[in-house]
Amino acid sequence: MAMELTISRAAITADLDDIAACSESPPPGVTRVVYGEADLRARAYLRGRCRELGLQLREDALGNLFARWPGAEPALPAVASGSHIDAIPSSGRYDGTVGVVGALEALSALRRAGHQPRRSLELLLFTAEEPTRFGIGCLGSRALAGVLGPDQLRALRDPAGRSLDELRAAAGFAGPFDAVRLDPGHYAAFVELHIEQGPVLEAEGLPIGVVRAIAAPATMRLRLAGQGGHAGAVLMLERRDALLAGAEIALAVEHAALATGSPNTVATTGIFQIEPGAVNAIPSAATLEIDVRDVAAEPRDHALAAIRAATEAICGRRHVSHQLELLNADPPATCDPAVVEAIVTVCDGLGLPRQIMVSRAYHDSLFMARLCPTAMIFIPCRGGVSHRPDEYADPDHICQGVAVLAHTLARLSA
Amino acid sequence: MAMELTISRAAITADLDDIAACSESPPPGVTRVVYGEADLRARAYLRGRCRELGLQLREDALGNLFARWPGAEPALPAVASGSHIDAIPSSGRYDGTVGVVGALEALSALRRAGHQPRRSLELLLFTAEEPTRFGIGCLGSRALAGVLGPDQLRALRDPAGRSLDELRAAAGFAGPFDAVRLDPGHYAAFVELHIEQGPVLEAEGLPIGVVRAIAAPATMRLRLAGQGGHAGAVLMLERRDALLAGAEIALAVEHAALATGSPNTVATTGIFQIEPGAVNAIPSAATLEIDVRDVAAEPRDHALAAIRAATEAICGRRHVSHQLELLNADPPATCDPAVVEAIVTVCDGLGLPRQIMVSRAYHDSLFMARLCPTAMIFIPCRGGVSHRPDEYADPDHICQGVAVLAHTLARLSA
Repeated sequence: MAMELTISRAAITADLDDIAACSESPPPGVTRVVYGEADLRARAYLRGRCRELGLQLREDALGNLFARWPGAEPALPAVASGSHIDAIPSSGRYDGTVGVVGALEALSALRRAGHQPRRSLELLLFTAEEPTRFGIGCLGSRALAGVLGPDQLRALRDPAGRSLDELRAAAGFAGPFDAVRLDPGHYAAFVELHIEQGPVLEAEGLPIGVVRAIAAPATMRLRLAGQGGHAGAVLMLERRDALLAGAEIALAVEHAALATGSPNTVATTGIFQIEPGAVNAIPSAATLEIDVRDVAAEPRDHALAAIRAATEAICGRRHVSHQLELLNADPPATCDPAVVEAIVTVCDGLGLPRQIMVSRAYHDSLFMARLCPTAMIFIPCRGGVSHRPDEYADPDHICQGVAVLAHTLARLSA
Repeated sequence: MAMELTISRAAITADLDDIAACSESPPPGVTRVVYGEADLRARAYLRGRCRELGLQLREDALGNLFARWPGAEPALPAVASGSHIDAIPSSGRYDGTVGVVGALEALSALRRAGHQPRRSLELLLFTAEEPTRFGIGCLGSRALAGVLGPDQLRALRDPAGRSLDELRAAAGFAGPFDAVRLDPGHYAAFVELHIEQGPVLEAEGLPIGVVRAIAAPATMRLRLAGQGGHAGAVLMLERRDALLAGAEIALAVEHAALATGSPNTVATTGIFQIEPGAVNAIPSAATLEIDVRDVAAEPRDHALAAIRAATEAICGRRHVSHQLELLNADPPATCDPAVVEAIVTVCDGLGLPRQIMVSRAYHDSLFMARLCPTAMIFIPCRGGVSHRPDEYADPDHICQGVAVLAHTLARLSA
């Protein structure tokens, strides 16, 4: 490589520690729901770190954060990197956060090395990659790409019935939703560093994965309405128990994924709530949220159809009414060959073994890929575990990932 | 009948309205969790009403309320009547409350008629008949009967981890738990007025049921621990999904009730909570609470054994660990023939058609029956519906039930 870069393991570790401390649940679990108190504390911390680096800050109406290091030719489209910091209940400290902290350290290292980019470099912090609060993943990047428009944003509510509009205002974010969308051509490239959230790199003993495609996720919300009643007084054959219909459907979701013929199809009932939820009351209603994915659209859509058919049959037989909504079914994303090639060249230059692979988890890159040439850098995580308190990435692997990111940003911004 | 009594429909309706207004959820649903704000408001209202009647008030360490009308021979064991006012989330306004308001109006009517009881008459308000907060039904009456001792009371915690001791103190109830238990012989008799919570009386067109036995309830709590992970990244065959194990078990609970051969066996999974509860996370843990009942102990215990066996098999196959606790398995109660006979005699004297029946729901009377001669008066409720916002009892039926109760109390206290 032309440039020598020193990645500060101490800075990365301190940033990860400080952000993990912003949590709504006790350690080792991390909970940061978008616009919640912990999320706002972590954002304040990151704004402070960006200011220390002398970056120029902008926040849009949703709280997406843009921290710019102006290039020698600031009128050129910038090169961006970043990820998210929101975390589902009781999850880990690396998912998303590594990509934000890593981009910060990559810019830091480039600055320390005396690099002067021709194109501006920008750190991006996306609002609400996780669907925890509003039921839709990649909220911020989806809106940046124009896939989620102002009308849809105005219609979003959290489970407590509070609107996105109200919550983002309470969190201190203002401005019209119309101004969130970015023009195609706004960025020259986007690169996201992320833990793999799968077992491949660890199993192969590889420090770096270069992502060539991101899986196609689909999410369904199912509301079931049966008939409640006293658990002691209504005989079994007279019941219309919403929980039991939901239980059969959750098992049908599993079966649908196993039956596509593709070993990559996964389907998960991740939300399952019943009402009224008392030991002596027959469940009158249930809400399920179902996540179905594959790297190919066809088996995924096959599983969706099977779940739909099973729901109709089960609810018909149990006399439980249902409402099934497809919340999203995004097409898979293909990464940009030139950006993939740049990352591969950097890995080879640094002597880091790498594998070109697909991402079965989805990321803000799925939507950034609609705006500009995009690719991702994966690093291993222990046991492939993510979305759990014991999620773990080795600091050496993180530093290697940040080194690859920094050199890639240098190449792309030159 | 010897005595003419006038039951005030207006007073009953006003009391029911005022207590229904004490709710944590909007009408028509009623939610009154024990020691919660709505419960405390309703208790304050009832204390006021008892004082208007000139009753002598006592509250024990759990908040069980005793409101006494001293008899001509106050040293004799008293005759008592009452029920509970706590209400499971989004339930109705009649379950329990009719028995409290009804006892109040029965004493009122007797006083207006110039009745002077020989034995004292006492209105009882039991704390936490519903298992909503502490996972165990009939908390107050169980403790009065000595079935739940001081050590067990001290160990109870609500789902948020707060102890019963702390919560009752915050609600204003003090004193040692050892003093809660009553001596056998403390009361001469106990009579509870209650809505049927089943369809029999309505279907038969009868205004009054006289309960001769109360079904044997059993409650189990099941905790499942599987392995969480990212919904996109962990392949189906590598999963240990706690929700799916729970779904199979909930269906096995239904099957266990259907398979006992007794049409009276009912089994309900009324609580089903998963963790972490995010659409893109594989459920790592689940908590189920299961209620199994029959008027006979044998088929009920057969169903319990079947549920236990199914849980072992399902968890073994899915590599999910489990912890199954039998929270309670109380024996059925037989009502006192003399008290049943007194109620029947009153009905016949008033010309009210009645049926001698069993209660499939359980009540504080189940535990009062261990302390003293006990029976129950049932009135119809629309569609047999209970534990739902649309629970309804006709005011005429309530007044008839109160008349039967008042005359019965007069006979028993004479």
